[in-house]
Amino acid sequence: MRGRSFSPKDSFVEAYLGPEPCALGPSAAGSSTPYPRVSWQDLSIVNRQSEQTMDYRAPQTDMRFVLHEVLKVADHYQQFGMDDPPGEDLINAVVEEGAKFCEQVLLPLNRSGDEEGCHIEDGVVTTPKGFKDAFDQFVENGWSGLTSPTEFGGQGLPESVGVAIKEMIDSCNLSWGCYPLLSHGASEALKHHGEPWQREAFLRPIVEGRWTGTMCLTEPHSGSDLGLLRTKAEPQADGSYAITGTKIFITGGEQDLSENIVHLVLARISDAPSGTKGISMFVVPKFKVDQQGAMGERNEVSCGSIEHKMGLKASATCVMNFDGAQGWLIGPPNKGLNCMFTMMNTARLAVGIQGLGLIEITYQNALAYAKDRLQMRSLSGPKYPDKPADPIIVHPDIRRMLLTQRAFAEGGRVLSFEAALLVDTSERHADAEVRAEADAQLGILTPIIKALLTEMAVECTYHGVQTLGGHGYIAEWGQEQLARDARITTIYEGTTQIQALDLLGRKVMGGKGQALGTLIEKVTANCSAAEAHEPLKAAAARMQETAADWAALTQEVAKRAMADADEVGAAAVDYLFLSGYILVGDALLRSALVAQQAHIDAKLRDGKQALLNFYVDRILPRVGQHAASIRAGGKSLTALPESMFDAA
Amino acid sequence: MRGRSFSPKDSFVEAYLGPEPCALGPSAAGSSTPYPRVSWQDLSIVNRQSEQTMDYRAPQTDMRFVLHEVLKVADHYQQFGMDDPPGEDLINAVVEEGAKFCEQVLLPLNRSGDEEGCHIEDGVVTTPKGFKDAFDQFVENGWSGLTSPTEFGGQGLPESVGVAIKEMIDSCNLSWGCYPLLSHGASEALKHHGEPWQREAFLRPIVEGRWTGTMCLTEPHSGSDLGLLRTKAEPQADGSYAITGTKIFITGGEQDLSENIVHLVLARISDAPSGTKGISMFVVPKFKVDQQGAMGERNEVSCGSIEHKMGLKASATCVMNFDGAQGWLIGPPNKGLNCMFTMMNTARLAVGIQGLGLIEITYQNALAYAKDRLQMRSLSGPKYPDKPADPIIVHPDIRRMLLTQRAFAEGGRVLSFEAALLVDTSERHADAEVRAEADAQLGILTPIIKALLTEMAVECTYHGVQTLGGHGYIAEWGQEQLARDARITTIYEGTTQIQALDLLGRKVMGGKGQALGTLIEKVTANCSAAEAHEPLKAAAARMQETAADWAALTQEVAKRAMADADEVGAAAVDYLFLSGYILVGDALLRSALVAQQAHIDAKLRDGKQALLNFYVDRILPRVGQHAASIRAGGKSLTALPESMFDAA
Repeated sequence: MRGRSFSPKDSFVEAYLGPEPCALGPSAAGSSTPYPRVSWQDLSIVNRQSEQTMDYRAPQTDMRFVLHEVLKVADHYQQFGMDDPPGEDLINAVVEEGAKFCEQVLLPLNRSGDEEGCHIEDGVVTTPKGFKDAFDQFVENGWSGLTSPTEFGGQGLPESVGVAIKEMIDSCNLSWGCYPLLSHGASEALKHHGEPWQREAFLRPIVEGRWTGTMCLTEPHSGSDLGLLRTKAEPQADGSYAITGTKIFITGGEQDLSENIVHLVLARISDAPSGTKGISMFVVPKFKVDQQGAMGERNEVSCGSIEHKMGLKASATCVMNFDGAQGWLIGPPNKGLNCMFTMMNTARLAVGIQGLGLIEITYQNALAYAKDRLQMRSLSGPKYPDKPADPIIVHPDIRRMLLTQRAFAEGGRVLSFEAALLVDTSERHADAEVRAEADAQLGILTPIIKALLTEMAVECTYHGVQTLGGHGYIAEWGQEQLARDARITTIYEGTTQIQALDLLGRKVMGGKGQALGTLIEKVTANCSAAEAHEPLKAAAARMQETAADWAALTQEVAKRAMADADEVGAAAVDYLFLSGYILVGDALLRSALVAQQAHIDAKLRDGKQALLNFYVDRILPRVGQHAASIRAGGKSLTALPESMFDAA
Repeated sequence: MRGRSFSPKDSFVEAYLGPEPCALGPSAAGSSTPYPRVSWQDLSIVNRQSEQTMDYRAPQTDMRFVLHEVLKVADHYQQFGMDDPPGEDLINAVVEEGAKFCEQVLLPLNRSGDEEGCHIEDGVVTTPKGFKDAFDQFVENGWSGLTSPTEFGGQGLPESVGVAIKEMIDSCNLSWGCYPLLSHGASEALKHHGEPWQREAFLRPIVEGRWTGTMCLTEPHSGSDLGLLRTKAEPQADGSYAITGTKIFITGGEQDLSENIVHLVLARISDAPSGTKGISMFVVPKFKVDQQGAMGERNEVSCGSIEHKMGLKASATCVMNFDGAQGWLIGPPNKGLNCMFTMMNTARLAVGIQGLGLIEITYQNALAYAKDRLQMRSLSGPKYPDKPADPIIVHPDIRRMLLTQRAFAEGGRVLSFEAALLVDTSERHADAEVRAEADAQLGILTPIIKALLTEMAVECTYHGVQTLGGHGYIAEWGQEQLARDARITTIYEGTTQIQALDLLGRKVMGGKGQALGTLIEKVTANCSAAEAHEPLKAAAARMQETAADWAALTQEVAKRAMADADEVGAAAVDYLFLSGYILVGDALLRSALVAQQAHIDAKLRDGKQALLNFYVDRILPRVGQHAASIRAGGKSLTALPESMFDAA
């Protein structure tokens, strides 16, 4: 290459790079343009550090667009045989009220909750100041039973309405949101597998918000591998079981928000088979409850300690000791994992939505900073010559980071709201075949949404911190808390690795490619529809190619896996990312297509188009990297003897 | 795709996926293999939480390999005209002593330092327990002046020896390492630009470790853009200046380790031009120092507060108030940025080495966990049938995460040690032309090493946390601290974005492609040399293709930038990553090639080969993604009106 120099015009180099030497590379030189001296007050950024809350407004316009224009949820509800299916106006009103609660009550408690954290003394856990009041308001306003069955005091609204509320809660206060989230999981288990008295005794008070729930799975030696768990359950004369063992990482295992706490515990009945086939599920309340639902004395379950964590500090993560605690079997003996399985999709989607909520707020906060922070001039000349420097949003790489966040917020919203609609369809649709098909699609989307949106939350909160620079790293701005909070989401409720094995092993290969085939057909059809619209044509063609390679690649992996099961493990994570990036692209393509309709606001339409263009140019190329890694096969990972990992 | 199902043999599906439904996807099913019940004591992992320090042994074998086999530093030193150039044995002895200090003194203080943090009361900053003792030992053992000039009491060793010590310090205690790091920067400035009395008065006590130094650049409204800074310097009758202003993010601005603190401060002399052309550099000691070097009364400089940060908590990040403090001009007036520029390469390399240190320790810690933690069975059948489950290192994706960390540790070590050798060559070589060429190569490598190794530290500490799962997120294991500490490294000393503009704008385009051309030629030559060795042939061919495209892509970007300066900003970060991934690949290729020599240990040779194969299969495909993003151009970023970033 020597000798083939670029020969830029010297005047360009000077204008662009400034006089050498310069402290901070070319960019600093932009500011050598003369500008009037300004007082501190002119730089609004300086005074912002005293503010306590972050920039966040619930994205109601986009939520309405997704719910009513892209997904047309109200039309679907008409087919659910509901007495009074919710229409657009009701849905919008619910979202609006939820937005107020989240913005006004939860958001102001997010940083203070992180700073204060949870405390334990003599087994009593105290949540941060304001958390109990916020929970009381949540319950009083009926949010705890929003999507719960009406026969137990809930409001019976579809999950695809509830998901919007969840997203806003997770944006405003991820830690606080964990308490109702886990209650929801316990409700689901009781609803599907509880005996009538158990549902009356345990489910109703949870729906009413008087009690909360937990999920007690993990033990010190048994995390992703539940087959290793050892907590014991001994049958008692009264039909109950005595539960003995230690559970760790129990979210909300102890707290001061609710009158009683209902633990759903996985344990082994005496002489049960080893491994996953000998696990049963029990309900173990903090205060004993008899079969008439009367609350009695304290049960033999206690919180031994709480974890000191990287983030999510206002959510109490408890070590729970069960010392012969009274528990009641839920579902058939030794079928605990089957019972757990029924709530897996909703629980995993809920964590995916945590990712979405974090992506939305990191975008909004980073955007506000980027528009406000004056630093350097645009490389193509001053954009705000009357200011001492341009706002950093003029710099292309700041824009790249912002648009990455926005793409996963808006694309992720379509994907996860659609999955919630599939939950509704799979549970409520009149036609069994439609229910089954929805369930199959949900099965394939769930691990992708869970893993991709949480991984993107990690990436996007990274971009948020980077956009704020040094200010992103200090606590005052709240941005670093988002990054710390986000970090757990790729781990709990099944790591990204577990989701990837679920997707490729169980859902794609185990399902013999049927559900995947349907999904790829849909993506292909969306591309064809979009190609008819000139502004979308190029993007749709790129997406079309990518989808075709997705199908081919899946065949290749399946073939290799027949010969060597380890090839599944070697390909799974790349396969999940590849699938996820395609589906987010599809979501943005569909959004841009729907936005072409005449009644859509021009700014929204232009925004969807711009986001699609950005995504195809800048994010979709990631698919090629994952495809190449998959095609390289697993040999470079698996052929290595274990001893080779040690230093020479 | 429907109808083209994969038709795996049912027996395979059953063996692989286990009986449906299963709680945690296919992988959990592996554990349904019967195994004997074990007691808690059999699971060594359970007892590890009480340990306080992390798994770390200084990678001395690999350091020796890099220094002596790959770089042959001692041969280079022969050309520096040193009185007594250090040979292999001396270098190894220095590294060994450094390893002991880091492992035994610094590592045990890392977690306690993070937990305790720094405190401030009435302007007095206290570092965590043990930090002062460790600093005293560091000074007593002569480490503070290891690479400083002998005429000021230093040991005069080359930077390419010092870099090994730096890496180990940064692995063991990044926060503690910041104190001597900043002293080093101040020494460099004084060495190159100080008047003789200033060097005697300020440099000697820093070299001796009695005093420390800081760099005071950033102000609240002036971060990446130093042109905006406002701190004032008024000339005094005695030849000194009265410095007034507020500096933020000052590492070690106040602390309890040293007798005096020497601040190097950027400020504007009254009536200096605005922007970057009116900035001067001053030395401002905490206690005044006269021209005879005598320390006097307290100067008018004080610490107003310290920051609460995401990590690096044991490093005091100070707001420093200068209220007419006595300062002395360093270098010519209005040339402060030029002076700063001379120490930029070493300071930025030092931060890149922080990234390297973090990558090495996260690898070691995650590896120890992965070998110890029993969870699930290998998909291809139990590997440790006598244990209740296999160690998680059998899972391909755990291996992918581990090898990613190792690849950037070992490849990054070659790159950054080589850069340190270029520093030495550019300063000490007898031949001016060789010095100039080394300087040009250093100029192009510095932003790549700084940005890539810190970005990879963020990624690799992510992998470390992910490998440990829930245990990665809690403080006991130390892994989450590494992730928090790493997060600042892509920001301070110039963000990744600033490095990228420096690389593409100044070093590649500003240098008309000359230095880059030389670098690409070297990579190409390395590929050709490696292709002659059968085991390296395929990898070398892949690298060769990639290097060719690097050259082509550079031409394309340069052409586009001629038409629109914003194209540089749009391409720069992708260009930096692309260049970095190629150079790490080249470093691993060279290592594998050197390891082919007969006298090299077989395990080391096989390890280098395996790491190269992994890298080419799994990491090098990232280059394609970045190339595609660059080729897409900047339009999707820059054409967007600013108002489009707001919600519709």
